[in-house]
Amino acid sequence: MSQFPAATRLRFVLVGTQHPGNMGAAARALKTMGLARLVLVAPEKPLDEEAFRRSAGAEDVLGDAPVVATLAEAVADCRFVLGCTARARRVQLEEFLPADAAARAVAKAGEGAEVALVFGRERTGLTNEELQLCHAAVHIPSDPEFSSLNLAAAVQVLAYEVRMQLLGAQPVAATEPDSREQAASHDQMESFFAQLGETLDEIDFHKGRAPESAMRKLRRLFLRSEPSEQEVRLLRGILADTQRMARLAQNNGKDS
Amino acid sequence: MSQFPAATRLRFVLVGTQHPGNMGAAARALKTMGLARLVLVAPEKPLDEEAFRRSAGAEDVLGDAPVVATLAEAVADCRFVLGCTARARRVQLEEFLPADAAARAVAKAGEGAEVALVFGRERTGLTNEELQLCHAAVHIPSDPEFSSLNLAAAVQVLAYEVRMQLLGAQPVAATEPDSREQAASHDQMESFFAQLGETLDEIDFHKGRAPESAMRKLRRLFLRSEPSEQEVRLLRGILADTQRMARLAQNNGKDS
Repeated sequence: MSQFPAATRLRFVLVGTQHPGNMGAAARALKTMGLARLVLVAPEKPLDEEAFRRSAGAEDVLGDAPVVATLAEAVADCRFVLGCTARARRVQLEEFLPADAAARAVAKAGEGAEVALVFGRERTGLTNEELQLCHAAVHIPSDPEFSSLNLAAAVQVLAYEVRMQLLGAQPVAATEPDSREQAASHDQMESFFAQLGETLDEIDFHKGRAPESAMRKLRRLFLRSEPSEQEVRLLRGILADTQRMARLAQNNGKDS
Repeated sequence: MSQFPAATRLRFVLVGTQHPGNMGAAARALKTMGLARLVLVAPEKPLDEEAFRRSAGAEDVLGDAPVVATLAEAVADCRFVLGCTARARRVQLEEFLPADAAARAVAKAGEGAEVALVFGRERTGLTNEELQLCHAAVHIPSDPEFSSLNLAAAVQVLAYEVRMQLLGAQPVAATEPDSREQAASHDQMESFFAQLGETLDEIDFHKGRAPESAMRKLRRLFLRSEPSEQEVRLLRGILADTQRMARLAQNNGKDS
């Protein structure tokens, strides 16, 4: 949890939640993203079995969540408060997309500020009074024709963007240079292509056509996949057996 | 829905879902992001009241979802298949973060390809066999210490990233917009792999070893390069000539 110091200064605030299950699902959403601070403002019903069931292992996050009476109380010590809205036009707040909002939230928290992301009621969202406590709004750009994003789903999207920002500090590992084996060297690739060219001759693949066009296409295909040394050895093994067959076929042809 | 033509070529595939409620929540997640194509592969239980309740207005998306028996069937006409994994290290697929995966998926769909995003079972994810049908993996970078992302939450994150791409919020470096030919379909790739398997037998490549390991490595290599239809034809032409040689060698062997 404390892998990212900024994360300890970020709280997710749920206001007037109607379904306890959504509080549980929100706790789970936070915990999967390495976040732990949930605050509950005047939930309609207290936490129940359904809430803990849907937290699915995030009982600690849910159980530790303070319950307070008003949003003002929940964000009293915060220096940056973002209100999540389906449509923020009602109140003239600056409005950010989730990635941008998360970037700002993480930056402020990184500077030492307490930061809150605030989510309204399932049906009616945040009141104008509540939005006026926010420094800016976050808008998840749902389809205007069907914008009924589940509360926990909205929390998940923001928590995900916060995590991406936290991880973004260190360029993320999860991308391409996967733990594959050592890529084949230029020389290894050229030796493979030479053997491939010979093999195509031996199986009479070209049948009188110029070999250049096929070889060019094959080079492109194999270079694109950036084979490992091990993969090139595998391919060359196949070529070797193909050449063995071709020679056998040819020798026998000579015999007859 | 048809606001973005590319969206009509993007399907979200849920494999072996255990809780019908999650299928409903996934349908809702898609619809809020302006997406409509859900495919259900062998769900453990049929859609029920809970599923439709949790779809919360996305009954159309849920009700229209075809139910098929296997993942292969669900992606038969797809030219780009992304498998969502908690941890992809098991199978050495190229692994993308959600935003990057969505960028690629939308780019391919924009070029006219059918594209699938595949989500596994709640507890156990996708099997290795299922991952082998995928061109690449998507990894939502959850906290390694608590990575139990809810299925619908994972769908929500990917659907959200797809929508961000469709909206073109950040004009994504739409990655390798190579002017290549039409990518080979799932079925075309599988026919190629079947012929490759036969060919390896005929040239006696395995020499008593189990063929699975070599085939798994070859699948990975060729899927990674996302061959065009034309390239697959070229490769199959080489295999056909190799098989011809192998048969000639064998027939002659019989003669002598």
